[in-house]
Amino acid sequence: MHYELYYWTGIQGRGEFVRLALEDAGAAYRDVAREEGDAALQPFLDGGQPGMRPFAPPFLKAGRLLIAQVGNILHYLGPALGLVPDSESRRMQALQLQLTIADLVTEIHDSHHPIGSALYYEDQKPEARRRAEDLRTQRLPKFLGYFEQVMSQGGGRHALREHSYVDLSLFQLMSGLDYAFPSAVKKLSPKLPHLRALQQRVSERPAIAAYLASARRLPFNDNGIFRRYPELDG
Amino acid sequence: MHYELYYWTGIQGRGEFVRLALEDAGAAYRDVAREEGDAALQPFLDGGQPGMRPFAPPFLKAGRLLIAQVGNILHYLGPALGLVPDSESRRMQALQLQLTIADLVTEIHDSHHPIGSALYYEDQKPEARRRAEDLRTQRLPKFLGYFEQVMSQGGGRHALREHSYVDLSLFQLMSGLDYAFPSAVKKLSPKLPHLRALQQRVSERPAIAAYLASARRLPFNDNGIFRRYPELDG
Repeated sequence: MHYELYYWTGIQGRGEFVRLALEDAGAAYRDVAREEGDAALQPFLDGGQPGMRPFAPPFLKAGRLLIAQVGNILHYLGPALGLVPDSESRRMQALQLQLTIADLVTEIHDSHHPIGSALYYEDQKPEARRRAEDLRTQRLPKFLGYFEQVMSQGGGRHALREHSYVDLSLFQLMSGLDYAFPSAVKKLSPKLPHLRALQQRVSERPAIAAYLASARRLPFNDNGIFRRYPELDG
Repeated sequence: MHYELYYWTGIQGRGEFVRLALEDAGAAYRDVAREEGDAALQPFLDGGQPGMRPFAPPFLKAGRLLIAQVGNILHYLGPALGLVPDSESRRMQALQLQLTIADLVTEIHDSHHPIGSALYYEDQKPEARRRAEDLRTQRLPKFLGYFEQVMSQGGGRHALREHSYVDLSLFQLMSGLDYAFPSAVKKLSPKLPHLRALQQRVSERPAIAAYLASARRLPFNDNGIFRRYPELDG
């Protein structure tokens, strides 16, 4: 199967969770907007293409299928790319964890955009400061402690006892947090030994290491989900 | 199959999306916390039970399976309850739409809790006023316009050309918005004829009508996701 990934250019964003799965598996894919520009997304967002209209990027074309929502895309790709355990019950566990990661990703985004995603950060700085404090002190410890315990109960090396797209997403989550909240995450790290070791191991997987060293991996920047605004890092 | 639903007592909350599916299908289920109190959830949230630990309610026990995250639960229940089209591609479309509904539900929640979900509304009222304005003027028109167009392209009667759990969730979404943002939704309604007609039709389905008339359907209240704070309705 030759895939087509559609996501905004210029940022890693939510598209990166899909990109990491495709890269790790060595899948053949085209990153369409990076070749053709963001305008390539519009006909799909306008609902003018066959298949279920996506509300937002990322979305994936796989043959005649058009699939949107990160969790849904990875749930589809998992078996095809060998990135999820075989059984239906384990597939559901993977989706459960991925949707929980997605919830945290939204909260991280909202830490710099608590009032409106279409407004500038500069127009919501005092609110962002309050929200980020709540994220650092309440939400991050709760979510990351949860993923740490899930890993611990599963033997410590993986989210699901074997390699899966969830491990790749946890790598991306931790890497983004290292960029955006270096001080907050450093404080939490002693309680997250499994997550930290997983992050390291994923970065050393040959296909991932090659991807991270390539130009296809955009650096984190302050237009994406993970933004380094020191005033939000406490 | 006899199901056990676990969700906080006292509110409809995210549990209601699962409850509506179980009720519509006439499934045998126990609403455990309503019988035993919220304490019944804790052993699962603490990770002391078999299966993948849930990050938060709702979660469902189905035999030996323990399943969390609304979209994941409905993706599982869909085929078992006859609430999703048969084909894999249609199942993915259902999940895509359900996850998009979940995104909007989070945004609706955050309109009264833009700073922190553990803080009181009274501690974030000015921020809530700004966020709710963004929800009313930007996000609701965009999301509801999307669902309206999806229905329109699918023939107008259903989200997926036939009855599914997505229709039930759209009913719940519109009903909650009627409670929380009566004025804002009234203004948008002329552009949402299919959603409005769907909401009415779902409410008239015999099993749903019986459920809505029962004591099992809690009234909306100002502890849940959908809250009637007139100052947020513009």
